[in-house]
Amino acid sequence: MPISETWLLPDGVADVLPEQAQVIESLRRKSLDFLASRGYQLVYTPFIEYIESLSSLSESNQDLDLATFKVIDQLSGRLLGVRADMTPQVARIDAHVHPVDGIARYCYAGTVLHTKPQGFNTTRAPLQLGAELFGSDSIDADVEMVDLMLSLLKEAGLAEGVHLDLGHVGLFRSLVKQAELSKATERQLSDLYQRKALPELAEFTQDLNFGSDFYALGRYASDLTALQAHLSADVLENTEFKQAFEAVKATQAEIQARWPNLHIGIDVVELRSYHYHTGLMYAVYAPNRAAPLAQGGRYDGIGQHFGRARPATGFSCDLFVLSAGRFESSSVVVAPKGSQPDLIAAIQNTRAQGFSVIQLLGNDDLNSVPYATHQLVLANGEWTVEKI
Amino acid sequence: MPISETWLLPDGVADVLPEQAQVIESLRRKSLDFLASRGYQLVYTPFIEYIESLSSLSESNQDLDLATFKVIDQLSGRLLGVRADMTPQVARIDAHVHPVDGIARYCYAGTVLHTKPQGFNTTRAPLQLGAELFGSDSIDADVEMVDLMLSLLKEAGLAEGVHLDLGHVGLFRSLVKQAELSKATERQLSDLYQRKALPELAEFTQDLNFGSDFYALGRYASDLTALQAHLSADVLENTEFKQAFEAVKATQAEIQARWPNLHIGIDVVELRSYHYHTGLMYAVYAPNRAAPLAQGGRYDGIGQHFGRARPATGFSCDLFVLSAGRFESSSVVVAPKGSQPDLIAAIQNTRAQGFSVIQLLGNDDLNSVPYATHQLVLANGEWTVEKI
Repeated sequence: MPISETWLLPDGVADVLPEQAQVIESLRRKSLDFLASRGYQLVYTPFIEYIESLSSLSESNQDLDLATFKVIDQLSGRLLGVRADMTPQVARIDAHVHPVDGIARYCYAGTVLHTKPQGFNTTRAPLQLGAELFGSDSIDADVEMVDLMLSLLKEAGLAEGVHLDLGHVGLFRSLVKQAELSKATERQLSDLYQRKALPELAEFTQDLNFGSDFYALGRYASDLTALQAHLSADVLENTEFKQAFEAVKATQAEIQARWPNLHIGIDVVELRSYHYHTGLMYAVYAPNRAAPLAQGGRYDGIGQHFGRARPATGFSCDLFVLSAGRFESSSVVVAPKGSQPDLIAAIQNTRAQGFSVIQLLGNDDLNSVPYATHQLVLANGEWTVEKI
Repeated sequence: MPISETWLLPDGVADVLPEQAQVIESLRRKSLDFLASRGYQLVYTPFIEYIESLSSLSESNQDLDLATFKVIDQLSGRLLGVRADMTPQVARIDAHVHPVDGIARYCYAGTVLHTKPQGFNTTRAPLQLGAELFGSDSIDADVEMVDLMLSLLKEAGLAEGVHLDLGHVGLFRSLVKQAELSKATERQLSDLYQRKALPELAEFTQDLNFGSDFYALGRYASDLTALQAHLSADVLENTEFKQAFEAVKATQAEIQARWPNLHIGIDVVELRSYHYHTGLMYAVYAPNRAAPLAQGGRYDGIGQHFGRARPATGFSCDLFVLSAGRFESSSVVVAPKGSQPDLIAAIQNTRAQGFSVIQLLGNDDLNSVPYATHQLVLANGEWTVEKI
């Protein structure tokens, strides 16, 4: 490889230079502090694990498995995976490493790696920040999580004009069960819903068991009242369906009460992460942006893989996405060489005021620090900070 | 794999639970803030890079190459490495991505991965924190770096009783040049020095060109005055040797002046990272601990690999090592369910005071939060925080 290319980075991977690193760092701290104030305890999860541990979600979710870089462990000869998602790791902690009797709340922030970008123009190394709540299957827990996600975005200065999407995999799932659909038919339907292909859906559902209900679910996916009006009594009285339906309604009402100006959209056939989630799903979108700012949902039973199934709900976001386009540069003060006590004291004072202070080296002059913004000068026997 | 084993972690890899994560997080912040106050600008480097970019140091340092996990990039078909050291990455930034005319100072903190533990009982995933200074070959820069390293440990509450080791690869290297040793002989000598095998060294150097000087270098490695008295005039007058010798002496004097109570040891044949470094080397040791708390040195020219050779000096440490054995648990306040304004206000107030506050979910009682330390109770019409 010629020298001129050694600095090239792989696609979807980037350096973060000081002006942006400062923004991300401060957002990271603010977010973790905020989550801590809400009772979410920080954990650090390992960067590599045996692939079997990382795959608690990927048994039914091949995407996650395909997104995971794999390497051979020289110590054990076994296959390791580089984490592509931190949620299964936190579930492992809840199930086994730190099993709390009662409700556990965790938060985390760290880089995850993807073998390929997961969307158009996205990074392969998101800085994932998230929160998870284990041990409660009440709607209160879902509401807390949605509220937490919105409040975090507000803390980050990103709540303006956002849009909350609520969904629930339980409606489709209970209909599939009632209609006793085959896996293949279930997949075809799920695909039609995701493509919002109503004419095709109409045709496809014509001869299907519970066909008009499946059509209504797609046609009125974003309007609970209309949906209710078009579903058959059998479906509406099904316990599972009713629970899911009520969960969406109750969460919407609770969140609207706490965030009166928030635009909330319902989409009960948004099945983006259908295999991953087991109940309510939520995502927040900013205007003019296709990818969500933050998203999450309920994934009860995830810990079963580690020997302890518990209700679970959580959300995550990418700090790179949240900080996109924001830069901050710091004030850098240059001080002359020397170790006389008054100079040293002046440097310490200036640092205590929040400035970065650099002392000149060797025979260097001010030009050796081209990004300096201020200098420390002696005027009338007093050291003072002056703009350059 | 049986379910009971899915929670097992690979050797040298660990979860960090809340009590320790809090300590590391606060140490991380304190350290980065301290480095920023000294003018070191934060950068985030990528977790994966093309292996050619990561190997700027490993051409002459096979250890680093062997420590690097390698994976195939599905996008380019090329070999990627997971960073095992962040220094080459920061050098790449200095040389190419963010080329400053003048002196550049960077700091960083992040997980690096090693294929095998690099020492007895060490992690394979250190949380590397460090600082690098590019563009100055003056002794002032070395002194600044050693002082920075010591001051950082002091900030972390770890400066008590520590011991600073100073070395310099230039003495041995210039002697090797003068004696025109073969690579094989150089390696043998270097091995004898590292094993402190004086009798063997005496025998080995008997018939060697400049043999008595090579012996003296090993025999008086930690005593500059005695060393000077035992070296031949030819060696002492050699420009390169003189420069290296003076650099150690000057740095020792400068650091001792700033840290009068610090124990400074000299070891001019400490060649631990001989292939990596090009000048002064430094390490700080705590009492009763074999591995250094922090270490670094000069590695001029590292950027050449990326098309821009510059003087460079820097140090790094592992936040896991610095935080070892320290735990902190937080105060968790449990508040009752409800959204009445006085309760919400009380919760907000309590959070603003630095407490973590959790509101009960569903029909849960206090037992649902077993790690709670306080509760918010209504007494005489006032919400107050009470110990549990």
